Amino acid sequence: MTAVGTLVLLRHGESTWNARNLFTGWVDVPLSEDGETEARRGGELLGESGLLPDVLHTSLLRRAISTANIALDVAERHWIPVRRHWRLNERHYGALQGKNKKQTMETYGEEQFMLWRRSYDTPPPEIDPADPYSQEGDPRYADLGDEMPRTECLKDVVARLLPYWESSIVPDLRAGRTVLVAAHGNSLRAMVKHLDGVSDQDIAALNIPTGIPLRYDLDENLNPENPGGTYLDPTAAEQAAASVASQGR
Amino acid sequence: MTAVGTLVLLRHGESTWNARNLFTGWVDVPLSEDGETEARRGGELLGESGLLPDVLHTSLLRRAISTANIALDVAERHWIPVRRHWRLNERHYGALQGKNKKQTMETYGEEQFMLWRRSYDTPPPEIDPADPYSQEGDPRYADLGDEMPRTECLKDVVARLLPYWESSIVPDLRAGRTVLVAAHGNSLRAMVKHLDGVSDQDIAALNIPTGIPLRYDLDENLNPENPGGTYLDPTAAEQAAASVASQGR
Repeated sequence: MTAVGTLVLLRHGESTWNARNLFTGWVDVPLSEDGETEARRGGELLGESGLLPDVLHTSLLRRAISTANIALDVAERHWIPVRRHWRLNERHYGALQGKNKKQTMETYGEEQFMLWRRSYDTPPPEIDPADPYSQEGDPRYADLGDEMPRTECLKDVVARLLPYWESSIVPDLRAGRTVLVAAHGNSLRAMVKHLDGVSDQDIAALNIPTGIPLRYDLDENLNPENPGGTYLDPTAAEQAAASVASQGR
Repeated sequence: MTAVGTLVLLRHGESTWNARNLFTGWVDVPLSEDGETEARRGGELLGESGLLPDVLHTSLLRRAISTANIALDVAERHWIPVRRHWRLNERHYGALQGKNKKQTMETYGEEQFMLWRRSYDTPPPEIDPADPYSQEGDPRYADLGDEMPRTECLKDVVARLLPYWESSIVPDLRAGRTVLVAAHGNSLRAMVKHLDGVSDQDIAALNIPTGIPLRYDLDENLNPENPGGTYLDPTAAEQAAASVASQGR
């Protein structure tokens, strides 16, 4: 069976809030300088490997959009069609948005902290619409209505991601395109969970490193011919995954 | 009659080849640092005036794409939908692409030089497909077939622009959207010629300054309620237009 399409996942580089160890979620912070460097490196890896996207899908958040813009410019693919959707956004972190990770752990204890960060189906408390880090009234989400989340667990992210996967990404793959998805730690974990059939249990341990394109070759049933995907820089991916896993400790 | 939609034209800022006084056309050069500053200023003007685009149309050339990316990021509209098309590209400058403007004027004389630059229907000589500044084989134009230009006069630009105007920009305007078109000196002159009904003769004297958004409020027949459009920074636009007019002298 030959691959119908190639999927390339790219997690955005470091944001100014990653650097400050704050829960970000839907708060629209920019990349840090290190994050911009990661995005350029991601673009170099695409170019060097000849893995040239035909179409880009991004979230509505600046750190994913900028990562894609920078990487595609470096890879000479700045001119490809772009689709953006809130269903590719990072997990909404509820009332934790804007909070320091270390302080949150100290306040609530490591058990509760890890449950919010890693359990499949325990969302943090809902954010107050009046909270300065709520997205209430943000024009980009004006059409969401009741679908506008106020908090999410990973299970919620999977549920809101899959309709977009089916309606927008799958048709591009079935057309034989190389599809770049520039998104976030949790929206990409949700996608990998679906692709590789990872259990609700095992997904907790899966970390996707930033800035290193992850390639999936998909067969006609959209199952990976290379389960788990292939990082364009496997050594860097291994080092980065180890570092992400220890974040917040 | 109330406006059906708002059109905002934005000519890209200075490129590295503008700064070197070379004919650029379809050669895909980046913005200069000054050009990036112009793009940021364009974004500030959009933000300050509350003229917030709902959708972006760009050419396939980096200097227009980067200008839009930078300006929309500054205006907090980085998340809007994007459409890109070669029909918004700069005029193809034929065999002049990559040539110095001053040297070209000295070689061919001012009369021929001004004819190529400003006449409505005299294209420069065709570019040789083997010329290093030809776009032959560029994957972004793979689908063009016989429509791939090897040189263009402004009349040619009008002819290839209008189908995109009708099929893609007009529907966005009729849907009541604020439409940002980030493009080039000549593709924007072609658009303004169509909108304002400028004669083949008079279009020669029309210069659109870089980096200053130009707003058109269109009525139900897509005629401008403000003929000639309204620059968001009229003083800067006047100064810049005078400077563009003297370019290459």
